[in-house]
Amino acid sequence: MSGDLKPVYLDYNATTPIASEVQAAIIENLDNWGNPSSSYAIGKRAKSAVDKARSQIAEMLDAQAVDIIFTSGGTESNHLAITSAINKYRESNTNTLPHIVTTNVEHPAITQPLRHYEEQNMCNVTYVPVVKGTGRVNVTAVLDSLQPRTCMVTIMLANNETGILQPVQQIFSEIRKLNLTRSEKILLHTDAAQVIGKLKVSAGELQADMITIVGHKFYGPRIGALYCRNPQNIIRPMFFGGNQERGFRSGTENVAMIAGLGAAAQLVTDNIDGYTKHLKNVRDYLRDGLMTRFQLVLNEEDPKLERGEVMWRYVDSHMLPNTLSVRFGGFSGNQLLAELSDTLQASTGAACHSGGSVSQILLNSWNWSEEGASQTVRLSVGRETRRSDIDRVLDGLAGLILGDEAVTLSRLKGRIVTNA
Amino acid sequence: MSGDLKPVYLDYNATTPIASEVQAAIIENLDNWGNPSSSYAIGKRAKSAVDKARSQIAEMLDAQAVDIIFTSGGTESNHLAITSAINKYRESNTNTLPHIVTTNVEHPAITQPLRHYEEQNMCNVTYVPVVKGTGRVNVTAVLDSLQPRTCMVTIMLANNETGILQPVQQIFSEIRKLNLTRSEKILLHTDAAQVIGKLKVSAGELQADMITIVGHKFYGPRIGALYCRNPQNIIRPMFFGGNQERGFRSGTENVAMIAGLGAAAQLVTDNIDGYTKHLKNVRDYLRDGLMTRFQLVLNEEDPKLERGEVMWRYVDSHMLPNTLSVRFGGFSGNQLLAELSDTLQASTGAACHSGGSVSQILLNSWNWSEEGASQTVRLSVGRETRRSDIDRVLDGLAGLILGDEAVTLSRLKGRIVTNA
Repeated sequence: MSGDLKPVYLDYNATTPIASEVQAAIIENLDNWGNPSSSYAIGKRAKSAVDKARSQIAEMLDAQAVDIIFTSGGTESNHLAITSAINKYRESNTNTLPHIVTTNVEHPAITQPLRHYEEQNMCNVTYVPVVKGTGRVNVTAVLDSLQPRTCMVTIMLANNETGILQPVQQIFSEIRKLNLTRSEKILLHTDAAQVIGKLKVSAGELQADMITIVGHKFYGPRIGALYCRNPQNIIRPMFFGGNQERGFRSGTENVAMIAGLGAAAQLVTDNIDGYTKHLKNVRDYLRDGLMTRFQLVLNEEDPKLERGEVMWRYVDSHMLPNTLSVRFGGFSGNQLLAELSDTLQASTGAACHSGGSVSQILLNSWNWSEEGASQTVRLSVGRETRRSDIDRVLDGLAGLILGDEAVTLSRLKGRIVTNA
Repeated sequence: MSGDLKPVYLDYNATTPIASEVQAAIIENLDNWGNPSSSYAIGKRAKSAVDKARSQIAEMLDAQAVDIIFTSGGTESNHLAITSAINKYRESNTNTLPHIVTTNVEHPAITQPLRHYEEQNMCNVTYVPVVKGTGRVNVTAVLDSLQPRTCMVTIMLANNETGILQPVQQIFSEIRKLNLTRSEKILLHTDAAQVIGKLKVSAGELQADMITIVGHKFYGPRIGALYCRNPQNIIRPMFFGGNQERGFRSGTENVAMIAGLGAAAQLVTDNIDGYTKHLKNVRDYLRDGLMTRFQLVLNEEDPKLERGEVMWRYVDSHMLPNTLSVRFGGFSGNQLLAELSDTLQASTGAACHSGGSVSQILLNSWNWSEEGASQTVRLSVGRETRRSDIDRVLDGLAGLILGDEAVTLSRLKGRIVTNA
């Protein structure tokens, strides 16, 4: 139905293209192949590229270059943050298990290591549930879960599936006050994978000790970094060897990809306001088109509430600017995407869930049945998304859903619903 | 003294350029940015590139694609191998510590994690000394070090500083026989970083369970892989999350770099005999030039032996084809390299030791004093190295060492020595 046109990609929360400026930095540094640990000229040149990128990442977060540790990606950054917190605690507390607080909507790159470390009897974990209907965790619920042996609170800045922003700054601010009187200081970590490049992220404002940075979510390469304030006090390395990254992360530096990550950060530093505005503009155009053409109902407490205007104000302040989580009654998400595969590339949840069962994140976030969650499609727009792309997607949906009235009526059962 | 010419790079054991074919594969796949876990077209295209690279790595080692796990580099591959062995042992042995056997000339990416895990009371380690003078470990010394609770033997295939090949195949072959009667099977791991791309490496011939593969040592990118035979029986993951790499190594795949690693492996598969021949040809030209122009003395038991011919036969069979470890009496290695920095880029040991103290690897490998070790320069040639490059280096050395006879005579004290 789309002729020679490629399907419209609306899965920017799964991964983003590599920006042309990032590609240029990577390509330029493919020839900058010296070992940054070597003391001669080409080694120094490679080290200089790594140093430049470190400063670029730091600037993006209003941080200092010494606070940035390069890693292989968000998964490693999260593991390094968690194991640092656990091992730091254990050094001074040999008789009690460290305790970690998180939410029940975290990415698998947080929940899976935590469950593994629990199984290994390395820590206990409290998974504070988010409020069903808002998808947000209560600040007081997190504070109430703290224990004397709590060594870490790790809460994502925004959820990849729902787009909901968590009140990380408020939580961290409260815990910083508590830390003044605690003997066991609580380390504050947030996985900012979904927010960097979409909204301004400031390490200082967040009051975080550690922030996970994931290149391929903001038009960078498939590596990452960990912001850590005073890493010499906090980081307990996972990798030992050549003492790269000041000993916090051994392994010869991936210079080309690091330079690319720096370039991606520079783009964010230079353009974040414009990015936010564009993403919101296109996402809202998509939302309005869905509402107009498909009698979309906006609701929080599905399927009872239909208070659209209230919900959209809520979205504006508590949601990523690029994400919509939409349901079409009568279609499973996977069925819908399969039938629209010539027009639309999107997903029903995190990429790593593709083909899997109903998302527990959605069930935890909304008052939805399993059927409701299974009907959900995540639409996430990006820097390249144009209104004309949205029009094509809306036309495709119309062809599928409204094209055959007889089918449609039985399938739709009278309502198309979006959460968010 | 070299005019507009760049210094000659003779530090290919530290790192290699990224081959043009590898660069092409990386650049091509910078646009192949889909998430390999996504079920739509661009996701499948990305997955296909990863699958292709996996097959290319496997073919290079005469292995199966299912045996290859992509990692962020050699450091991670070594950690994954070691922690898998430790954790596998502990699952069925809760009351005894696992025991690991290695040598006293391993790379820091082996020794440093082992020392850390020892400190954490996760294992005991025996560091079998290599024979001083040959730099090689005795097969029987390794076998004698085995204990009932030995879970792993990890021995590098060749040393990065001396170029000496270890008798890994013989050791692994003997232990495989022992494993037939042991209840606790010993896992066999080798870090092949320095050998892949220089000599043919066959997983089957080595009889290894695990082999560390490091891209940037064979003209590939700064990522790596771990060969593991039957990984489902052996691997205990370090990273949890999205279950990439069949769950053995979570983290969204670095598609462009993985494609580059595949291209680097393809080059090795297609050209390894030619690479070996070229490296040896140029290295021998360097050796012969040093012998002729500087009255080089080849010796094993420095400074007593001068049995050059015998030593070179030894080298041919037990040493990397590209490496020379050379001493110039009267100059420290660092002093020599500093004075020749316009002509030569080389190092006094592993890159990660640059600027550091005397190499313990050299002290363990040869019958040398600290002064002898500190005088050592490692010269390692690569695919691009030409005889004309060697001539420039020899001229530069002559200008420095023979240029001022008065200085020279006092500095040289009558002998220039090379080990190996």
